[in-house]
Amino acid sequence: MIIDSHGHYTTAPAGMQIFRATQIAFLGNPVKHPVNVSDDEIRASLDNGQLKLQDERGTDVALFSPRASHMGHHFGDERISRNWTEVSNDLIARVAGIYPDRFIGVAALPQSPKLKSIQGCVDELERCVTELGFVGCNLNPDPSGGYWQDPPLGDEFWYPLYEKMVELDVPAMIHGSGTCNPALHTTGSHYMNVDNTGMYQLMDSTILQDFPGIRFILPHGGGSLPFQYARFQGLSIMAKREPLEEWVKKVYFDTAIYSQDAVELLIKKVGVDNVLFASEMIGGVQAVDPATGRQFDDTKPYLDEIEWLTDEDKVKLFETNVQKVYPRMKPYMDKIAKA
Amino acid sequence: MIIDSHGHYTTAPAGMQIFRATQIAFLGNPVKHPVNVSDDEIRASLDNGQLKLQDERGTDVALFSPRASHMGHHFGDERISRNWTEVSNDLIARVAGIYPDRFIGVAALPQSPKLKSIQGCVDELERCVTELGFVGCNLNPDPSGGYWQDPPLGDEFWYPLYEKMVELDVPAMIHGSGTCNPALHTTGSHYMNVDNTGMYQLMDSTILQDFPGIRFILPHGGGSLPFQYARFQGLSIMAKREPLEEWVKKVYFDTAIYSQDAVELLIKKVGVDNVLFASEMIGGVQAVDPATGRQFDDTKPYLDEIEWLTDEDKVKLFETNVQKVYPRMKPYMDKIAKA
Repeated sequence: MIIDSHGHYTTAPAGMQIFRATQIAFLGNPVKHPVNVSDDEIRASLDNGQLKLQDERGTDVALFSPRASHMGHHFGDERISRNWTEVSNDLIARVAGIYPDRFIGVAALPQSPKLKSIQGCVDELERCVTELGFVGCNLNPDPSGGYWQDPPLGDEFWYPLYEKMVELDVPAMIHGSGTCNPALHTTGSHYMNVDNTGMYQLMDSTILQDFPGIRFILPHGGGSLPFQYARFQGLSIMAKREPLEEWVKKVYFDTAIYSQDAVELLIKKVGVDNVLFASEMIGGVQAVDPATGRQFDDTKPYLDEIEWLTDEDKVKLFETNVQKVYPRMKPYMDKIAKA
Repeated sequence: MIIDSHGHYTTAPAGMQIFRATQIAFLGNPVKHPVNVSDDEIRASLDNGQLKLQDERGTDVALFSPRASHMGHHFGDERISRNWTEVSNDLIARVAGIYPDRFIGVAALPQSPKLKSIQGCVDELERCVTELGFVGCNLNPDPSGGYWQDPPLGDEFWYPLYEKMVELDVPAMIHGSGTCNPALHTTGSHYMNVDNTGMYQLMDSTILQDFPGIRFILPHGGGSLPFQYARFQGLSIMAKREPLEEWVKKVYFDTAIYSQDAVELLIKKVGVDNVLFASEMIGGVQAVDPATGRQFDDTKPYLDEIEWLTDEDKVKLFETNVQKVYPRMKPYMDKIAKA
């Protein structure tokens, strides 16, 4: 069983863009207007997109969330973000309903810069998990889209969300959205900055102590962590925090990085128990690697080809680690196993 | 000959902090008050600091610039930044005058957020090179200290500085200063974000075409570049830019990373001709690596121990590459060779 822990609905039908354009046009007086997307359009967008690639690449099931870069938390205000997030999550629920053996829903949260309270995100997480059957969420440490206007993840501002995550037994993947800052590039610099900053905020906080059992996923191979490992190791020693080699065993990393040497370095640094297979397809890097002749985001072969991994290790990476991190996957996986 | 391409005067005498505290106290009416630092204080600060370590670690000469994290370009306005930068550069000139065979000066620039013109930096670079004998400069792509308020490095705003760099034949190291943003940590996340963002701004610009021969150094092993190499490779293909493997041959990287595997990955990815030995001592990571028993920033052994490097490669890394990037080092090196 091959489970991709990180997929976004990047090929959503045009009705979603029409909804968003209408939000721009009526920004001063937002209403939750209807989203005009048919089931046939959803099927077409996936049969020729994500599902086609999953079939070609041998991925059975994907954790699937709204298109991260298009959440645009910086845009408008909290109402705008709530409306857009709700329709985005609702669409994911429809996808998971149409293809229950191929997609399991993960929520976007209605974040917005400089909020006084995170309660709107708490409510939407609860709705997505209890009503839509989602198994986790994505959390953006910079809803300003590159201007870093919000308190770090270790600030108590975020704590009601962590309480709800623990109560519902769902994890959060630290994931940015698009940037509105001309100094940054969404997938080139901003995502890497978000990965790195979110990770350091976590490391430099007491979240893991204050919420025992809480789980976070650091995507894209952990940003810079495996390469800059010794920097973070030294900084942890200076700050008298727990040793980095212990800390990395309490968070999770995914393989949405695009070369074999990088995937190997990641697993060597954080260990096989803390890595989840992920492609982030259909994601931000859409090109063929001249060295392999495959798409960069066809990440399964990087793992397949690591000679020093045992078969048991590969089962962990492709199948069991992700279910440990997202325990609410169980009823879905049980149904798939029966079918 | 061992040349450390990246050192900051982090142990500057207390007179410098007194100057800075006075700036805070009289922010509304800044005057360039005198700096009270004696030659003896300078000697003491180095004999028991940087020079002691250079002697212990076998470093002959260091390129030496003001303490990067303390430049605080976000603080006050352009006048404040100019006064502080001038006294900081003047102090480096005194260091290089006292120890001409051990330190060669590199300039800080009087940056400030949201400037209308970069002319103040152009003027200070010219002063530092022509009057103080400096051989390069540090350039901060985010003078706001973590809020990213300025145009990317590829914007014509910065071009007068690049013209001056080419005219004077001096390179710039892309280097952040301290962050004033509570979401960020200076050496844990902000520096990495600056490295990564500055690199992507350069990559996504026409600076190298518009200024043939201009040279930039990306410190700290290139931030995330070696690990996320395939991401940037794919993004370059998507944007129809020159292949990444050609681009990395037009910029330079330093070895201020703190483990052998990271240094090896860097050299493998960008090639031995484009890497400069650097320790960034006495820098932001002051701790002993439990695995080696040495300080993390004692970076020379990482290079010494790479078996697949030839003796000729090591001469490039420790000695000749840096002189190619900083050609104004020549008269200093000639004098040292004669002595």
